[in-house]
Amino acid sequence: MSHGSLPHDLAIRGDGGGTIIMLVMDGLGGLPHPDTGRTELESAATPHLDALAARSSLGMLAPVGHGITPGSGPGHLALFGYDPIESMIGRGVLSALGVGFELRPGDVAARLNLATVDHKGVVTDRRAGRPSDEDGRRVIERVRAELRAPDGVEVTLIHEKEHRAVLVLRGEGLGADIADTDPQRTGLTPVPAVATGAEPESERTAAIVQGILDQVREILADEPRANSFLARGFAVFKSYPTFEARFGLRAVAVARYPMYRGVASLVGMAVEGVPDSNEGSVGILERHFGAYDFYFIHFKDTDSRGHDGDFEGKVAAIEEVDTLLPRITGLGADVLIVTGDHSTPALYREHSWHHVPTLVASKWARPSADVFGESSCREGELGVVPGKDLMSLALAHAGRLDKYGA
Amino acid sequence: MSHGSLPHDLAIRGDGGGTIIMLVMDGLGGLPHPDTGRTELESAATPHLDALAARSSLGMLAPVGHGITPGSGPGHLALFGYDPIESMIGRGVLSALGVGFELRPGDVAARLNLATVDHKGVVTDRRAGRPSDEDGRRVIERVRAELRAPDGVEVTLIHEKEHRAVLVLRGEGLGADIADTDPQRTGLTPVPAVATGAEPESERTAAIVQGILDQVREILADEPRANSFLARGFAVFKSYPTFEARFGLRAVAVARYPMYRGVASLVGMAVEGVPDSNEGSVGILERHFGAYDFYFIHFKDTDSRGHDGDFEGKVAAIEEVDTLLPRITGLGADVLIVTGDHSTPALYREHSWHHVPTLVASKWARPSADVFGESSCREGELGVVPGKDLMSLALAHAGRLDKYGA
Repeated sequence: MSHGSLPHDLAIRGDGGGTIIMLVMDGLGGLPHPDTGRTELESAATPHLDALAARSSLGMLAPVGHGITPGSGPGHLALFGYDPIESMIGRGVLSALGVGFELRPGDVAARLNLATVDHKGVVTDRRAGRPSDEDGRRVIERVRAELRAPDGVEVTLIHEKEHRAVLVLRGEGLGADIADTDPQRTGLTPVPAVATGAEPESERTAAIVQGILDQVREILADEPRANSFLARGFAVFKSYPTFEARFGLRAVAVARYPMYRGVASLVGMAVEGVPDSNEGSVGILERHFGAYDFYFIHFKDTDSRGHDGDFEGKVAAIEEVDTLLPRITGLGADVLIVTGDHSTPALYREHSWHHVPTLVASKWARPSADVFGESSCREGELGVVPGKDLMSLALAHAGRLDKYGA
Repeated sequence: MSHGSLPHDLAIRGDGGGTIIMLVMDGLGGLPHPDTGRTELESAATPHLDALAARSSLGMLAPVGHGITPGSGPGHLALFGYDPIESMIGRGVLSALGVGFELRPGDVAARLNLATVDHKGVVTDRRAGRPSDEDGRRVIERVRAELRAPDGVEVTLIHEKEHRAVLVLRGEGLGADIADTDPQRTGLTPVPAVATGAEPESERTAAIVQGILDQVREILADEPRANSFLARGFAVFKSYPTFEARFGLRAVAVARYPMYRGVASLVGMAVEGVPDSNEGSVGILERHFGAYDFYFIHFKDTDSRGHDGDFEGKVAAIEEVDTLLPRITGLGADVLIVTGDHSTPALYREHSWHHVPTLVASKWARPSADVFGESSCREGELGVVPGKDLMSLALAHAGRLDKYGA
């Protein structure tokens, strides 16, 4: 697997260059409000972002590709300059990273659903009646206490939320080309865990997984609802070439949620503490500014309010970041990028495929508007930028790239 | 090595089509002047370019890729429709072409620096005190006269400028995966010429190169400063599929500087004389108009003034081309493209990665503005066009492409 080497075999300058801050408002892009024709970003009062736009190159980011709605993992990998297709992280791995589990290369991870099966083994509820977090956790604890691990394999079970959990297998010679056991609808029995190809590691691992699932049926036999597991998204964790190796950047991530620290760690970024508020995130950035070359700072609320369908809430989340912006611009980084990993329009209530308004502020910018919004970015200098090319731009503006060819 | 087949396996019409002029102002793109917010092109008085823009499709050219600053070689290869990544020309080859040497496929070329080493062989000056052109030429002549060529290999040494020269080896079975011998800083001994991989041709050639460098040390032992060579940028010359084979275009290049005639020759363009002024370039174009299908005309001063950091000088260079433009439009080519191979903003003083304003004038244009500049091109019909796709547009506007698919 290639990890998305940069498109042009970038010649990183040996003598360093400027500092870069990448400010990500998760799910930043929006859709126009039917009453005003303005998106969340265009509706927000953002004097500081607008002033920044006036000294930035503007453009629209296409995180993965036209029409492709990225999950958070691919969205962030693209922002970090890794081809999100080539570097695709399996869902199981993303979930394990999301709950903060420290994966090692070779670990196999899968997503689990607690489910209900009847006495014939037929699935009657794929989510076990959506147990409370507390009840879900209790069931997982129960399995954890009674499960006999197969020889030579370390099994980790982590409750995530409600009916969702994560399975991690650690051991020599494991594979992850394993079909989902979730039959996708009720009235069917779970699909046996089988290898999808002929790889012996995956065949062996599939047998291990089936053994675990069979044990779980016995352990949970007397549970009224959550009496079995469905597994899906098997994936093996591979290490990534680090940010420092690829770009010559010592990088740090500041993010309140484990998922984002997880993806950043995956590419070798340092993590300096866990902020407990957006202001706290800026505080960590300030305290560590100067010690790194690249600073990734992540704000989540824009995405959350988008998922809630809360247009005004998303507007307010953007305005909160705008209020914090002077402390970030005040640090004097050579390059400041403001973007999102994807759009989460409040009207759509989900991640979407729409391009993401993006600004690149540096002294080498070609400004075109004094407003930061979908409309101004659409007419900006950068055009539509593939997500994975944003790092090339960041490096160029920071004076960190050599000329390509004589 | 693929030579960058066009993106869609272009179907060239068998029955010909219109004539195309590609006018390249080297380093055309700029950055806004801090006082006016206008770039060099936007500051220049360009009535003729503006009138042409009013009947053109406008857009921004991305020569190689987002954030990538192209050298002149990759920049021009892209303009000529060759993928600048796949068709990468090594630096040694570019230098040999630049001094007008007629390379043959299989030739190995490298750049040489005259350098000073002390009695222990430690490099004390990587540029031998920057000799005058005359003194540099004298030293190269001296080596040329005394060097014994290795068996079966023809060695050519060409002085370029000051401390710079070019080495070309011609013979059977040569390779160019050879490390630079330049240690990159003083206080170190030169790096021995060694193959960077296991290719036997390169191992053999590395030994030949080291033999030459050892001889040079002896020949120049009594020179006070220029007493050794440092070699870098080893590259083997491969032939390119010609413009005529790929596009069905008989093409000619008009350029004052050898570098650009060299790249044009590389893709099989004819060269009709060497102009001694910009007006002379237009004169050659006029005299040969009608004899070819495709005319590449190159103006250098925009780039030179950009390198000088001379904003007003670059403005004047653009205005000079504008003054000559009526003689070019007067020829009545079916398609006239005005663009650059990259940006050289006077404020940046170097080639940069910024997009290049571009117009495609033909009767099939979709005009959008009556000004030729970065701002108008940013909002133009073509959006951001990858450099290597410009030729597809040129061929389409000239009626030289068949429909793709039924």
